[in-house]
Amino acid sequence: MAAKATMADIARQLGISRAAVSYALNGQPGVAADTRERVLKLAVDLGWHPSASARALMGSDIKVIGLALSRPTDAFAVDSFFFEFLAGVESILGERGWSLLLRVIGDAPDIEVETYQRWWGEGRIDGVILVDERHHDERIAAVERIGLPAVLCGGPRKGVTLPCVWTDQSGDAALIVEHLAGLGHQRIAHISGPREFVHERGRQRGVRTAAARLGLAVTTIEGTYGAADARAAVDRLLAIPDPPTALIFGNDHMSVAGLKRLHELGKSVPEQVSVVSWDDSPLSRAVDPELTALFRDNQRYGRQAAETLLALISGKQPNLVRVPRSVLRERGSSGPAA
Amino acid sequence: MAAKATMADIARQLGISRAAVSYALNGQPGVAADTRERVLKLAVDLGWHPSASARALMGSDIKVIGLALSRPTDAFAVDSFFFEFLAGVESILGERGWSLLLRVIGDAPDIEVETYQRWWGEGRIDGVILVDERHHDERIAAVERIGLPAVLCGGPRKGVTLPCVWTDQSGDAALIVEHLAGLGHQRIAHISGPREFVHERGRQRGVRTAAARLGLAVTTIEGTYGAADARAAVDRLLAIPDPPTALIFGNDHMSVAGLKRLHELGKSVPEQVSVVSWDDSPLSRAVDPELTALFRDNQRYGRQAAETLLALISGKQPNLVRVPRSVLRERGSSGPAA
Repeated sequence: MAAKATMADIARQLGISRAAVSYALNGQPGVAADTRERVLKLAVDLGWHPSASARALMGSDIKVIGLALSRPTDAFAVDSFFFEFLAGVESILGERGWSLLLRVIGDAPDIEVETYQRWWGEGRIDGVILVDERHHDERIAAVERIGLPAVLCGGPRKGVTLPCVWTDQSGDAALIVEHLAGLGHQRIAHISGPREFVHERGRQRGVRTAAARLGLAVTTIEGTYGAADARAAVDRLLAIPDPPTALIFGNDHMSVAGLKRLHELGKSVPEQVSVVSWDDSPLSRAVDPELTALFRDNQRYGRQAAETLLALISGKQPNLVRVPRSVLRERGSSGPAA
Repeated sequence: MAAKATMADIARQLGISRAAVSYALNGQPGVAADTRERVLKLAVDLGWHPSASARALMGSDIKVIGLALSRPTDAFAVDSFFFEFLAGVESILGERGWSLLLRVIGDAPDIEVETYQRWWGEGRIDGVILVDERHHDERIAAVERIGLPAVLCGGPRKGVTLPCVWTDQSGDAALIVEHLAGLGHQRIAHISGPREFVHERGRQRGVRTAAARLGLAVTTIEGTYGAADARAAVDRLLAIPDPPTALIFGNDHMSVAGLKRLHELGKSVPEQVSVVSWDDSPLSRAVDPELTALFRDNQRYGRQAAETLLALISGKQPNLVRVPRSVLRERGSSGPAA
């Protein structure tokens, strides 16, 4: 992590006195308007953190962590993973008297970076949790550059020095594929989320690797997590000569929609086609048959992310944290291959 | 709303100079430690808002609204209403460059009030949205006393001057009861959420009023929104001589659990018992038969709450806002009375 910029750094770079910098940053008179503007601009660029003065003003520590989400609000409204994760984060923050500054922006990681820079430059947050790691994720370099304490939900990744809270996607994929292989399935399909997300790449790779090891054929279809994609995938897959006998859907909504589409097409589950959901949620148990689903303890994941960030903010150097091992909950939607 | 306290108010009450108050509040030298402490304490008590100085320091407006939720994090993780509402709030904030300061606290409205006082006293927020209105809700007087701009999701209520975003619970109840009366049901049951919440009182009253008007008998059972309560309610209701032929459940999770319990007991839905859910969510359409459910546009509700609060913060006096009229989505779980 870069060292934090100080008022002295700003003064030196602009060739002005520290007092002038202080006046500018504290909104006091005694400094020309254009100088004030140059100071404020550089302060934000450098990720200057008004910790001492802001905390004095506020009469307390900041004790806020930031979370900006690059997701459309419609998708946010129905994502069981994220709410479980958020509940876990909040449970740690609540216990320790911290709060969360949340902003949901559309599908715009660049605005996410801007938001973090602004929050940090304005002394509103002590650190951030980065979720939804993307391929070539620009946020990682950005937070490192401005010295903003951050925890990456993802990784570990070569060259990334942020503490990571990682999920063993290969291990999760192996749990699912081994279950299906054990039931005698030879041809399976994986209807995944977008490859833009690193975790979806890891899952695709994990499914293919486990299938190759066990001698299964895999068809991979990429979707956007929505019901329409799941239905279209079912139609495409069933039209293949020798279609797959088991379908793995990337989230709970796709699984439920896929199951419904199979029923509409007169396919009985699990007698003709098995279905496995990558998410376990109340939806998984509402349908008939109930879904075999990968249970991940997302609340605990959120707690781990928050605890790791608070440790980092308090000056510790957290090790790599691994989320709890997932469990495949076997229910009625998966059975012996037809 | 009470007028905001100023530095002059604090100086007058403590009998010290305005300069001393300013030094104390701005964390500058020139004031004794015990005086500083008295100033800070009184500032918080009075709900003093360091808008000018904090904004100058931060180089921008605060542009943050607060939301503290008195709910256990486990309940928070699965509540479809709240996430849809939150997505709506975020969509308005995102469009306008505002952020949300969120804290989920356990079932503790007193801590909710403390949190708002602290956030406001420390200049972290411009206003709050009050959700989950409770019977004898102490938050309303608290925000009025400290002059914190606030919007109440609930009301309108005699003596409450806060802008309200209100739902016509009687109208919603009438939609459901009229639907069931139209199907020939004579005996219905309402498995509601806790009466501690004002909206649940309104719904109970609404169901009873509509039923009385239409000549239906109602049994009301109060639950905690959880699956176990729904199952227990089904068992109790079916044990009544002349049991109800239609069950109204207070949320989506209770509806799904109640439907499952009916199936376990060998009751066919809707042939023997009709089921109606007060929430429409992805769960409602995952089950078989799909649930007749009251669709409330919760994202729009969240947008209205955020818009009303931003209007209030900008100095407008918003009128009473009514959420969009609900729609009863008739699906397979309700049919003619047995």
